Amino acid sequence: MPELRQNLITRDWVIIATERANRPNEFKVTTERPPLPAYLDDCPFCPGNEHLNTGEISRIGGTKQWRVRTIPNKFPALAPRGERTRSSQGMFRSMAGVGVHEVIIDHPRHNMSPALFSDEEMADVITMYWTRYAAVKKDPRVEAVVIFKNHGENAGTTLYHPHSQLAATPVVPTQVRLRMEEAIRYFDDSGECLFCRTLSEELAAGDRVIIEGKHFVAFQPYAALSPFHTWIFPRRHMASFDDIADAEIADLAHVLRTLLAKFHFGLNDPDYNYTIRSIPTANAKAEYFHWYLTVIPRVSRVAGFEIGSGMYINTTLPEESARFLRDVQVP
Amino acid sequence: MPELRQNLITRDWVIIATERANRPNEFKVTTERPPLPAYLDDCPFCPGNEHLNTGEISRIGGTKQWRVRTIPNKFPALAPRGERTRSSQGMFRSMAGVGVHEVIIDHPRHNMSPALFSDEEMADVITMYWTRYAAVKKDPRVEAVVIFKNHGENAGTTLYHPHSQLAATPVVPTQVRLRMEEAIRYFDDSGECLFCRTLSEELAAGDRVIIEGKHFVAFQPYAALSPFHTWIFPRRHMASFDDIADAEIADLAHVLRTLLAKFHFGLNDPDYNYTIRSIPTANAKAEYFHWYLTVIPRVSRVAGFEIGSGMYINTTLPEESARFLRDVQVP
Repeated sequence: MPELRQNLITRDWVIIATERANRPNEFKVTTERPPLPAYLDDCPFCPGNEHLNTGEISRIGGTKQWRVRTIPNKFPALAPRGERTRSSQGMFRSMAGVGVHEVIIDHPRHNMSPALFSDEEMADVITMYWTRYAAVKKDPRVEAVVIFKNHGENAGTTLYHPHSQLAATPVVPTQVRLRMEEAIRYFDDSGECLFCRTLSEELAAGDRVIIEGKHFVAFQPYAALSPFHTWIFPRRHMASFDDIADAEIADLAHVLRTLLAKFHFGLNDPDYNYTIRSIPTANAKAEYFHWYLTVIPRVSRVAGFEIGSGMYINTTLPEESARFLRDVQVP
Repeated sequence: MPELRQNLITRDWVIIATERANRPNEFKVTTERPPLPAYLDDCPFCPGNEHLNTGEISRIGGTKQWRVRTIPNKFPALAPRGERTRSSQGMFRSMAGVGVHEVIIDHPRHNMSPALFSDEEMADVITMYWTRYAAVKKDPRVEAVVIFKNHGENAGTTLYHPHSQLAATPVVPTQVRLRMEEAIRYFDDSGECLFCRTLSEELAAGDRVIIEGKHFVAFQPYAALSPFHTWIFPRRHMASFDDIADAEIADLAHVLRTLLAKFHFGLNDPDYNYTIRSIPTANAKAEYFHWYLTVIPRVSRVAGFEIGSGMYINTTLPEESARFLRDVQVP
C-alpha cells in the first residue's frame, strides 16, 4: 500500500510509492560525464580569462591568485539598475525586473567538483555567499535573496566550471510568503519555531538523519519530495542566512561537502541543485522562520501528475535512502 | 529591462527575461524521434495484446475493435482498495495511499501522436476522460481527480504508445486548495469568477490568443510560466470538468488537437504535458472556480532559481510566441 505523507514545512503531500519503489542504488548514474581539462582557454570562469568578464564584484584570495570570485551575470535575469515601478491594468500586473544577478565562481579549477572540495575550499565558497548576501540585502529594492547552485545539465546548467549564483528579487516570492504564513500559524499555535521542532523530532527519530555536525544536521525529511531530497538545518535558531557565525560556516562547509561527496561516490555524481532558503530581508530576526539549505539530486522527473496536482511521487522510502547515504564512505 | 509579471490565478511571479530572450523558432526541437512501428508485439497498449493488461475498465468502440480504452495502472501510485486512514504523530503526518490510478489508451495505433488525431479521434479521448471522471468522483474516498498526459521522455514517459492517465487522490492537494482560496478571495471582492474575468480580458487584449473556438479559447497567459505555456479555457462558467456538454467536447477536441498540431509542426514535436485542472469533487458547482486545461511544452528546465524562489523565468515574450503559434499552419 502506498503511503501519503505531508511535509509540514512546505504543506506538500507526497506519495511514497512503495509499490513501484526503487532500491537506492538503482538511482546510480550510469552515463559517464565527458572528461574535462583543468583549464580551458575560452572558459570565462578560468583564471587568466578574467578579461572575458564584465567586471569583478568580490574575490577571496590574493590579487594574483583568487580562490573564489563573484562577477555580474553576463545575461542577468534581473537588471542591476532602475526603479522598482509597478503597474496594474485590470488583470495584468507587472513590475520592472530590477534586482541583482551574480555568478560566484566556486573554484579556479575548471574540472573541479564541489563534492571533491576540501572543507576549507567549501568554507571559502560559503564565506563568499555570506559576503554577497550581506551586501546585496542592503539594496532597498531587494526583498529576497536566493543563493543556488545548478550542477549538471538536468539541473539547468551547460557551463561546467563550478559556479553558484545569487539572485535578489524586488518582490517576496509567493512560495516564500506562503511558507512564512504557515510558519507564523505554527508559531501562533505552539509558541515555537516549526523548523526547530522539525529538527528536534527528526533527530529523535534518527532514521532519516545522514550527517550530524556540531552546528548543522543533514537529513531527509519525513515527506521528502523526491528521491534523496535532503535538508541541512542549522541547529541554532536563525531566520536569516547572514546571521551565520564563523564557526558555523566551517561546520556547514564540512556537512555540505560530505553530503555532496556521498552523492558523488554513492550515486556516481548525479546532477543536483541546492539552494539556501532564507527569510526575506525585511524580517531577518523573525522567531517563526529558520533558514536552511535544500539539496535536490535530479534523479527523477516531474510529470503530468505533479503538474496537475502539485503533489509529488517519491519512489524511494526516505528511511532507506538515508541509510544508503549514511553507509557511503567518503575520502 | 526584464519584466516581472504576476499570474493572478496561480499567484506566481514570472520574470519575462527579455535580455536573454529567445525567438520562438529557437525552441524548435532538433533531434529526431526514433521511428516507431504501427504495432508492436510486446506493447501492452497495442490491440491484440490486451491479455498483457490486468483488466479493462472501459472502452469506446466495438467488442472487436476499440478506439479508446481504459485499464488499471499496472504500477499504481495510489492503491485501488483500502480505507482512508490518517495518522499524526508529532510532526509526522501520514495517510493510507488509497485512490485511483488508471491508464487511458488514446488510440489503437502505436506510432500515432495526439497532434495528428482527427477531431473525432480527439473527441473520443475527451469523452473517455469525461466518462472516467464522472465514474471515479463517485468514490467517497476521492477528493480530487487529475487527468493528465505525458508526451515524450522529458515529460516523464518512456512508453511511446499514446496514452493519458487519471489519478484520484484522497486529499485535496495543497496547490489546488491555495488556488481555490485565491479564487474565493477574488469572488468575495468582485462578485465574479476570476477565470471568467481573465478570459474576457485576454480576449479583449487579443495578442496572446492562439485559437478561438465556439466554446473554448486557447491563449498564452499574460504571465506564462514557461515558453509556450498555454491555457484552454471553456467560455461558459463551469467549476467541474464533468459538467462539459457534448457540443463542448467536440469543440474542445478541435481546439486541443489544433493546438497540439501547432506545437508538432511549428516546434517539431516537442515533449509536453497537459492536465485538466478541475475543482475538487465536493465543490462541483462553485461560482468562484472554473476548470481549464493547461499545456506545458517541456522546452525549458526548472533550475536552482525556480526551486529556491518559486518564481519562474520565461525567456520568451508570450505575445511573440502566441503570434508564432497563430501563424503555424496545420493540415
